[in-house]
Amino acid sequence: MKLMQIYASLKSDLQTIEDTLASSVASDLPLLNESAQHLLKAGGKRLRPVFVLLGGKFGDYDLERIQYVASALELIHMASLVHDDVIDDADTRRGQQTVKAKWDNRIAMFTGDYINGKALVVASQLRDARIHQILSGAIVQMCIGEMEQIRDFFNVEQSVRNYLLRIRRKTALLIAISCQLGAIAAGAPKEFADALYRYGYRVGMAFQITDDLLDVCGTEKKIGKPPGSDLRQGNITLPVLYALQESGLRDQLLAEIERIRAGAGEANSSAAVKLVRGSGGIKASERLADRYTAGALHELDRLPNTPAKRNLAEIAKFVAQRSY
Amino acid sequence: MKLMQIYASLKSDLQTIEDTLASSVASDLPLLNESAQHLLKAGGKRLRPVFVLLGGKFGDYDLERIQYVASALELIHMASLVHDDVIDDADTRRGQQTVKAKWDNRIAMFTGDYINGKALVVASQLRDARIHQILSGAIVQMCIGEMEQIRDFFNVEQSVRNYLLRIRRKTALLIAISCQLGAIAAGAPKEFADALYRYGYRVGMAFQITDDLLDVCGTEKKIGKPPGSDLRQGNITLPVLYALQESGLRDQLLAEIERIRAGAGEANSSAAVKLVRGSGGIKASERLADRYTAGALHELDRLPNTPAKRNLAEIAKFVAQRSY
Repeated sequence: MKLMQIYASLKSDLQTIEDTLASSVASDLPLLNESAQHLLKAGGKRLRPVFVLLGGKFGDYDLERIQYVASALELIHMASLVHDDVIDDADTRRGQQTVKAKWDNRIAMFTGDYINGKALVVASQLRDARIHQILSGAIVQMCIGEMEQIRDFFNVEQSVRNYLLRIRRKTALLIAISCQLGAIAAGAPKEFADALYRYGYRVGMAFQITDDLLDVCGTEKKIGKPPGSDLRQGNITLPVLYALQESGLRDQLLAEIERIRAGAGEANSSAAVKLVRGSGGIKASERLADRYTAGALHELDRLPNTPAKRNLAEIAKFVAQRSY
Repeated sequence: MKLMQIYASLKSDLQTIEDTLASSVASDLPLLNESAQHLLKAGGKRLRPVFVLLGGKFGDYDLERIQYVASALELIHMASLVHDDVIDDADTRRGQQTVKAKWDNRIAMFTGDYINGKALVVASQLRDARIHQILSGAIVQMCIGEMEQIRDFFNVEQSVRNYLLRIRRKTALLIAISCQLGAIAAGAPKEFADALYRYGYRVGMAFQITDDLLDVCGTEKKIGKPPGSDLRQGNITLPVLYALQESGLRDQLLAEIERIRAGAGEANSSAAVKLVRGSGGIKASERLADRYTAGALHELDRLPNTPAKRNLAEIAKFVAQRSY
């Protein structure tokens, strides 16, 4: 498997970032230390640091400098997950208890704030004002995306465009700037940084659509949480929106969604999930994810032929990989 | 009244900051726009911007530059209030409905995150890395302070030192760096910036102790919320800690606090408030606040004799002013 090789080739640099992350979130306050370490140990793919490192390869790669970008981005991502779990009322993530479940919403809120603060401490090591502008802009957009998600809960009338704008803010933007900021921190030419941004944006869109597909089509074992979680909390994702466009299915699916909404978290979403699985929404969503992946690969054409470019191509393909 | 004159003398600069705040939090998303504007309109004394402006007078006062510091600090403060209200389960602040009460906790969490993000966007206009380091460090300390407050809820065994460390992080630090960063952004000599930091820290301590005294001794009309709110949510403040040291009072007060704790937000705190009001804890707290105020004034001795210095002295006296 190619992805393991990519991680292996970045192993020592990723370890440096892992150490920075661990020392960053360490706190004298046991409660905070515990909740933050819990989160850190829950792991994750460290996808954003990988993108930063690979983006950095298109310039003057200096780990000393780009590790701050990589760590800050991963911390921002981690903080957003903690706050996300409060909204989603999620008890598990990556098969582990969430901060909100192990402690409570208040602890989760301030753990998120704390990790966000630590991201800024790490980022303050960087002197390039442009990096701070891009970072802070993305943080704001992510918050707007979160708010849009709350606004759109159980909104069955929302458009596909609406969904795409939301996941752009919630997910794709941070991946886009991970690629871009790696390049900027390494002093790469602007055209490379721009192409990397567009690549990352498309990878991020494909990633989120695939994630939303997995929530419908995956098994609990595979996705580490019960399928249909999105629908249960009112998050209307792409396959559902496409399924709602099928006249033979629409009324039945609307009734199921209404039943879930009325159940206020107690209702089962498996009937709705079954309807969506049987719809054309799965194929249509897969097609859109594939289009984003193809677009991402296309953006790489503008970059010089290097191992890093080949790695980015592998990751783009991996991210949109599906096995339900 | 001297304070009004100080505000009047800074009026046009404060208006510039008010405009920056308003345009900063504006959003296309109606929900976010509404919650953020609601917060902005609730007003407040804009104490942190005032400290930044006055700190700036000890260097090369350039509003163009220091307005970003002032706006960023006020936004950070506003964001912390929104998250604070979630923890405190507060329905009103400054006599107005809180974001959490008008909408809900999730909206409040992301409104806070959004305003924090906007603070970073504003701060990213500044190119001095030291400013970013001081800002991010303070944000982290504030989060730790919030967590300590949660940890210490209903902890009747906590020491006065514990309380002081907590309010240092929660309140005093942000006021300290407001004074300091105003000076730094204006390129003032380090000794001035340092003295301003120490002045601000002491003013902040006096301010929080006075605020905690008001919660015990003030009328609902005066403080814009029912007295005893702190105790009702389990926040054990200085006058209570001092009262608990009185052997003739301790058992009765402990029983009242336990009754409030067991009531989980439903119990009335007026009996406990009455006990604390009748204790020596009020005078002792007033004395400590006065010592901090005196210390703050003492720090000003290191600064040149200017109108700004006289203004800072006036504010120190005003902040610790009490009329129950």
